[in-house]
Amino acid sequence: MFEEYDVIVVGAGHAGCEAAAAAATMGSSVLLVTMNMHTIAQMSCNPAMGGVAKGQIVREIDALGGQSGIVSDKTMIQFRMLNLSKGPAMWSPRCQSDRVMFAQEWRNILENNPNVDFWQDTVKEVIIQDGKACGVTTSLGIEIKSKAVVLTNGTFLNGLIHIGEKNFGGGRTGEKSATGITEQLVNLGFESGRMKTGTPPRVDGRSLDYSKMEEQPGDENPGKFSYTNTTPLAKQRSCWITYTNSEVHDLLRTGFEKSPMFSGRIRGIGPRYCPSVEDKINRFADKDRHQIFVEPEGWDTVEVYVNGFSTSLPEDVQYAALRKIPGFEKAKMFRPGYAIEYDYFPPTQLKSTLETHLISNLFFAGQINGTTGYEEAACQGLMAGINAHRNVYDLDPFILKRSEAYIGVLIDDLINKGTEEPYRMFTSRAEYRTLLRQDNADIRLTEKGYEIGLASQERLANVHIKKQQVEEIIRVLSTTKVAPEDINSTLETIGTALLKEKTTLSQLLKRPQISIEQLTTGNPEIANLFVSYLPDSVQQAEINLKYDSYIEKEMLLVEKMNKLENLGIIDNFNYDVVTSLSYEGRDKLKRIRPATIGQASRISGVSPSDISVLMLFIGR
Amino acid sequence: MFEEYDVIVVGAGHAGCEAAAAAATMGSSVLLVTMNMHTIAQMSCNPAMGGVAKGQIVREIDALGGQSGIVSDKTMIQFRMLNLSKGPAMWSPRCQSDRVMFAQEWRNILENNPNVDFWQDTVKEVIIQDGKACGVTTSLGIEIKSKAVVLTNGTFLNGLIHIGEKNFGGGRTGEKSATGITEQLVNLGFESGRMKTGTPPRVDGRSLDYSKMEEQPGDENPGKFSYTNTTPLAKQRSCWITYTNSEVHDLLRTGFEKSPMFSGRIRGIGPRYCPSVEDKINRFADKDRHQIFVEPEGWDTVEVYVNGFSTSLPEDVQYAALRKIPGFEKAKMFRPGYAIEYDYFPPTQLKSTLETHLISNLFFAGQINGTTGYEEAACQGLMAGINAHRNVYDLDPFILKRSEAYIGVLIDDLINKGTEEPYRMFTSRAEYRTLLRQDNADIRLTEKGYEIGLASQERLANVHIKKQQVEEIIRVLSTTKVAPEDINSTLETIGTALLKEKTTLSQLLKRPQISIEQLTTGNPEIANLFVSYLPDSVQQAEINLKYDSYIEKEMLLVEKMNKLENLGIIDNFNYDVVTSLSYEGRDKLKRIRPATIGQASRISGVSPSDISVLMLFIGR
Ligand SMILES: Cc1cc2nc3c(=O)[nH]c(=O)nc-3n(C[C@H](O)[C@H](O)[C@H](O)COP(=O)(O)OP(=O)(O)OC[C@H]3O[C@@H](n4cnc5c(N)ncnc54)[C@H](O)[C@@H]3O)c2cc1C
Ligand SMILES: Cc1cc2nc3c(=O)[nH]c(=O)nc-3n(C[C@H](O)[C@H](O)[C@H](O)COP(=O)(O)OP(=O)(O)OC[C@H]3O[C@@H](n4cnc5c(N)ncnc54)[C@H](O)[C@@H]3O)c2cc1C
Repeated sequence: MFEEYDVIVVGAGHAGCEAAAAAATMGSSVLLVTMNMHTIAQMSCNPAMGGVAKGQIVREIDALGGQSGIVSDKTMIQFRMLNLSKGPAMWSPRCQSDRVMFAQEWRNILENNPNVDFWQDTVKEVIIQDGKACGVTTSLGIEIKSKAVVLTNGTFLNGLIHIGEKNFGGGRTGEKSATGITEQLVNLGFESGRMKTGTPPRVDGRSLDYSKMEEQPGDENPGKFSYTNTTPLAKQRSCWITYTNSEVHDLLRTGFEKSPMFSGRIRGIGPRYCPSVEDKINRFADKDRHQIFVEPEGWDTVEVYVNGFSTSLPEDVQYAALRKIPGFEKAKMFRPGYAIEYDYFPPTQLKSTLETHLISNLFFAGQINGTTGYEEAACQGLMAGINAHRNVYDLDPFILKRSEAYIGVLIDDLINKGTEEPYRMFTSRAEYRTLLRQDNADIRLTEKGYEIGLASQERLANVHIKKQQVEEIIRVLSTTKVAPEDINSTLETIGTALLKEKTTLSQLLKRPQISIEQLTTGNPEIANLFVSYLPDSVQQAEINLKYDSYIEKEMLLVEKMNKLENLGIIDNFNYDVVTSLSYEGRDKLKRIRPATIGQASRISGVSPSDISVLMLFIGR
Repeated sequence: MFEEYDVIVVGAGHAGCEAAAAAATMGSSVLLVTMNMHTIAQMSCNPAMGGVAKGQIVREIDALGGQSGIVSDKTMIQFRMLNLSKGPAMWSPRCQSDRVMFAQEWRNILENNPNVDFWQDTVKEVIIQDGKACGVTTSLGIEIKSKAVVLTNGTFLNGLIHIGEKNFGGGRTGEKSATGITEQLVNLGFESGRMKTGTPPRVDGRSLDYSKMEEQPGDENPGKFSYTNTTPLAKQRSCWITYTNSEVHDLLRTGFEKSPMFSGRIRGIGPRYCPSVEDKINRFADKDRHQIFVEPEGWDTVEVYVNGFSTSLPEDVQYAALRKIPGFEKAKMFRPGYAIEYDYFPPTQLKSTLETHLISNLFFAGQINGTTGYEEAACQGLMAGINAHRNVYDLDPFILKRSEAYIGVLIDDLINKGTEEPYRMFTSRAEYRTLLRQDNADIRLTEKGYEIGLASQERLANVHIKKQQVEEIIRVLSTTKVAPEDINSTLETIGTALLKEKTTLSQLLKRPQISIEQLTTGNPEIANLFVSYLPDSVQQAEINLKYDSYIEKEMLLVEKMNKLENLGIIDNFNYDVVTSLSYEGRDKLKRIRPATIGQASRISGVSPSDISVLMLFIGR
């Protein structure tokens, strides 16, 4: 019934959509098998993309030629650049999305890719021959052949939903769970675990009193995610901020007895950094309030997402507590919050390509690897899609270093350290975060994306223009001197020391208080210097100039580290012959099979002395 | 957690949406409880509204102040007036819909109704006290109180999906079924039965060769459903026609052994007039081809609906046979066709208000009553919503007669004759179909809709204008005479007898070959007579004039029948004292409890002599 595909992607969540789009764009014939074609790219939880560190990931996906940035831009209802008061390494784009449009836009993109076919069905098993994945078997009993398989099952594997003392099978509220795959893989020798996540109740926006909340409008000049020519928002919807209080907490506590989390009914481990509200009031008992973001679910809908109020307490407790929040006195609920437990596979079982060690041509991406979040899922999907394609066509693996992308950090963390709790990205996880900014993801990654046939020629051309402009702007800034009489009044307004002699613009810009924008306002001759440059290029040049010492320092570190990174370890290296390795070190090295000494050094359990021993042995 | 509502509507399909909108618009506080808020108003099967007799129903719903016409107009991608070559009683509007937009538009309308609240959950039981419905219990164990309950569970009650030899529980593909309600109602004394319906596979439009099919574009001047100011389509998408052939049939026959229908695995009775393709080739073995309509699922999607190919044969048989259809040689399937069995409640258990006899304030509407089709479901929902509201506010029941609306015919048929197979509407079911036209639904019904507080003042005003204009136009037509020298050239072109003397326009129009349009083209003086009238009014006047003898005849019949219709039978009439009733007649009368002699005369099993006996007894 089916031809043999190059790549079968199982699941059409954020990971699956990126995987299918990437492999297909690069030339693989792809079949996307998913349980319900109406739920392609459904946002399971909050209708938002980006945020701190996550926004950087979306920019990286986009720079490589992925689609999440474009979809986000086309369907957002609000855009904010977070952390603007901090250094540019912390700037993080975030948008509020229209849930329905987001899903539709993704479906549109996939349908417009001539290499993507669709099949609505549930995959029950991966077909494996000679240790290689070569297709799937579905619940209809259909066998579909392929050269590679990417599993992106999200929260669906043996999904179990909890609300108070009730629980029932499901992959998301109202949807069935998926069985069979975990069981098969465990039989094959995979290790699986159990995690949990949760979602807040949805409420009727018409029943809220916004006058009791703080408005949080979008940015005045909204940005966007994609480096392509998507258009920024002309109008936006506001979010709102309100707070829990001790009354809310007291009411929530009345439900603790019936809480599936506190009673031990939920065994899976939840996301520490995205805790349920009951978890927050339990762990931070001294805090008398927690922030609640009240977020619209789309342009037109009255449905509202109560960010910060994720909970699996009994629905009547949720309801009573909600109503004590300022602005929620008359709140009507549409659906209660719930928690969901699901199977994941500890990601130390993967190579840096996201291929499994155990079965070749079998890739895992997304929540199935123990991560949480759309962005984390999407970027894994992208990388798995790319590498599945490259495997099929016998091309080298495509791997991003920790110094090149948050995506590199994420995958390196997963495969070397594993994760005991749902893994989400933070800027603190990146040791080179001054390099991994949201503004330079294109410069970091688009050439790579182009080389592998994913980023378009147009994207590449844009990057070349930007790079050239940045160079020119820096030259202009470093060579243009201003005289005290021309600039001192401006400096006075800013409140920084006046000039005594002619000084280059670049020197002025090194002062933390001074920005190009400030220098140009009211100084038409200076402003004139930049008129022929794109705003992004000007901003990039400014950042490069202002932060050059930090950037250089990190670059040196990277170079040092790269030396280790370049020391390869052959695939089937026999660790047993290196007798002086520590017991735990050898064990981990044998399991994770690092590709380089650099990677080996980051495996938890491998000590610095193990690394020295290894280097000695390998003879460098 | 919940206030007491006036009306709880269970299920947000076509019936549930109309019920909720109607009751809420009239002033009831309404809670719409549905299993999944993402599937509100989902079209389970073909993306189309209207059609023969069904289009008339949509017009009637609209005329009364319902929403299906407006939703259809706003989301259609093609419009055709079917049967234009026949008399106006047969003219039937039909549109192709954008599936996703249709659902979204409905949700929008409901969200914008301040009296509609939402709750996502599965209803397990109706709360009953003293023989009265007064709320529901959900799968979360929540009790929600109300003064009336409308059940619109569609195909979900103990839904069982079949594809070839496989079957699994589900209310629709990818969705859970609903359990509990049937069991409770049967325990209370309700009778339930089992029906089945089916749906064809969906295919990838990119894989079809349209050059081998006939194009079926929309109407050149597309009409619309609603009498309000929705705008007709400016652009449209085409459908395509192709045919099965003996090769297709032979291939399908190879699957008969595994067919759940032929093997007896499916016990529910399917829709005779919407049979599966295997049913067609089995029953009409001599026909060597069947028509297939190839219908797009929306503006942008490549998903295509294969109308006429509904099937529950094994998916590989579906696939192989599909590919033998001209244009489908390379067809790729997105999802297979399937059949679904579900519980229904024989509708003879209902009053003409759709309230159950057994439990007061409990209403059933839609597929749960043994009907099939969105339009049939929607109009029942509307009537149940209206009557639930009127019950709650102690107002008289709102009932439409067979002579007033297809809706009247439908409900009257259901409650008096019941149905052994999925009931769909046909023009032949209406004995007064010359009266029940699509063009005059507003004149027939809008005043009634306005009186009950459903149709808006604006709708009423429009009807008054139309009525007045029609009168005026008829006056003009009956009084304006044309001279032979002015009109004979036109008559010659048309090919009808020439005039010898001055004749009124109305007399000319009585000739079947002549239409107002023909008289006005090229005759500016005649055209001038109509410039100040709305096109709808002109058309209406023309129909009234041309068909007045038929219309009059039917009106006489209606009057006669109304005499019986006006002979009321008191609610708790004791049939046991009427000794000369036939055994079966008495039994049916006691079960169905007709409200009038007219209704009694239509109950299957009640003979004409039973009616005479009854009339005698009642003393008229
Ligand atoms: C209740 C809930 C709360 C969450 N809360 C948060 C939060 O607060 N913060 C946060 O960052 N993230 C949260 N998440 C996580 C976020 O939704 C996921 O990280 C993200 O959606 C994962 O993407 P994915 O592509 O891996 O999987 P998913 O988005 O889950 O998609 C999986 C896809 O695979 C399909 N599928 C599964 N099994 C099969 C099979 N056997 N055959 C065919 N198709 C299959 C499914 O139909 C679905 O389309 C939450 C998720 C849930 C369900
Ligand atoms: C596979 C299939 C094929 C069909 N083929 C045809 C066809 O060829 N021609 C044709 O005319 N018609 C066809 N139909 C029928 C058409 O879809 C229905 O007539 C129409 O949708 C019925 O509308 P409804 O409102 O009664 O129910 P539905 O549209 O089925 O809606 C029922 C709603 O109730 C909700 N619900 C059910 N139980 C509960 C509960 N316990 N608690 C809360 N919510 C609940 C569901 O989630 C859903 O929203 C087909 C239907 C199916 C499923």
